[in-house]
Amino acid sequence: MIVLGTVADMQGAAERLRREGRRVGVVPTMGALHEGHLTLIHKAKELADAVIVTLFVNPTQFIKGEDFERYPRNTDRDRELAARAGADVLFAPAAHTMYPEGYHTFVSVETITDVLEGAVRPGHFRGVATVVAKLLNCTKPHVAVFGQKDAQQAAVIRRLVADLNFDVEVVVVPTVRESDGLAMSSRNGYLSPADRAEAPVLFRALQRAERVILEGGRDPVTIKSTMEVMIRTGSSAAIDYLSIADAVTLQEQTILHSGREILISLAARFGSTRLIDNVQVVVP
Amino acid sequence: MIVLGTVADMQGAAERLRREGRRVGVVPTMGALHEGHLTLIHKAKELADAVIVTLFVNPTQFIKGEDFERYPRNTDRDRELAARAGADVLFAPAAHTMYPEGYHTFVSVETITDVLEGAVRPGHFRGVATVVAKLLNCTKPHVAVFGQKDAQQAAVIRRLVADLNFDVEVVVVPTVRESDGLAMSSRNGYLSPADRAEAPVLFRALQRAERVILEGGRDPVTIKSTMEVMIRTGSSAAIDYLSIADAVTLQEQTILHSGREILISLAARFGSTRLIDNVQVVVP
Repeated sequence: MIVLGTVADMQGAAERLRREGRRVGVVPTMGALHEGHLTLIHKAKELADAVIVTLFVNPTQFIKGEDFERYPRNTDRDRELAARAGADVLFAPAAHTMYPEGYHTFVSVETITDVLEGAVRPGHFRGVATVVAKLLNCTKPHVAVFGQKDAQQAAVIRRLVADLNFDVEVVVVPTVRESDGLAMSSRNGYLSPADRAEAPVLFRALQRAERVILEGGRDPVTIKSTMEVMIRTGSSAAIDYLSIADAVTLQEQTILHSGREILISLAARFGSTRLIDNVQVVVP
Repeated sequence: MIVLGTVADMQGAAERLRREGRRVGVVPTMGALHEGHLTLIHKAKELADAVIVTLFVNPTQFIKGEDFERYPRNTDRDRELAARAGADVLFAPAAHTMYPEGYHTFVSVETITDVLEGAVRPGHFRGVATVVAKLLNCTKPHVAVFGQKDAQQAAVIRRLVADLNFDVEVVVVPTVRESDGLAMSSRNGYLSPADRAEAPVLFRALQRAERVILEGGRDPVTIKSTMEVMIRTGSSAAIDYLSIADAVTLQEQTILHSGREILISLAARFGSTRLIDNVQVVVP
């Protein structure tokens, strides 16, 4: 695995790979790699001949008061994990490389960023869309792989890639979970042992909602009440939101129509640690 | 010259050219081609092995009340002129191809779009930046050629390309003028014969300002007064703005410093027809 830090080096390497006729895959990450990221890298290896992993803690997607400063960083470990997972290139630019003095350009995906994470974290998805556009131009991939754990991010990136005509296939990989169901996240390491023990209730509540829908439940209000009771009785978490929305438009549903793909998602805080999770289900 | 209308066909053709090792140039236009555009195509021929001309009257860069509907369109003539000038590919997508149902993504270049044309035409440069990002992704060029006539647009595109890491060289070609000095523009055809006869005063005023600066003038207020008097006495034009600004940041200057590159620019209306022009000068 080669490690590159400048845009010119990365674009030169990507251009050579493409000229050789190799299919290029990219896995954008903020580092702190865990099993979830490694699954994305393995998927990219299946889909492409050469896999680029990007490692960049993107300042523009952290809003004021969030954990940009304390976000876990361990470049040596990430480098080793990416290499062992089969990455061919690690692109790890410095912040001033990506956002030099005089930087002024931003990409916004409208409407679907007004809800869920976008409502709670204003500006977050502008930062995500901007850095993903930049990383696609730096790495020139044929295919880009993201995780379903960040469901709204995946929807935003699909929209961005389609709307700006990036010639890139977007592949979204199912969420990887701990044995007790907790979705893998770089932020799980912030949890106290007590909170870590309670956190799997989030996925259990999502599974319950999924089961209710598969068994004929059609009223989102009732389903969300059931989830809320489960989380409140099973943990000390503060719920940011519970959502039952259309999986593409992310518009909240008031009744569930047969055949529609639905995103059931939530965000909850254990102390200052904020966790998100989701499941998708097609209404039978 | 081949003519393509879909994004997939254009990207496929661009990808084949690149794989063959050919250098690809693009000249984005809104059609209504005139000698200015042909000069851009000739320049692209010098700089690239294969030249793509795009022809798309971009709705998102026209603001409410502007001339989108009546903007001159003559595809057959444009096709013939582009072919004769040496274009290898004409990319002429339909509006619904570029902005399909559900389109939601926009690119904004901040700060330098708050002044000059951006101040008078709010949202205009968001439309320009968005469509240029899309056209670069459709045509995958090594080099993109624009005209100095739209000076602020050129500055916005340089910023966009640098900030979003498009691997594209931006080349800006000097303004092509009629024999009496009027900058060539697709909108000149709207002018009445009387207005057409007066319009060259705009370039004469710019030349006067340039000469004053080259001869030691350092006070923008005085220089702009001289320009204003020339235009008011020499025509019936209504002046939108007169500007003496830094050529890169586009910030208005209160005193002219030796060695700095300055953009002298103006916009004026003859009836409902709005013309812009500019000259650049390095302060001696």
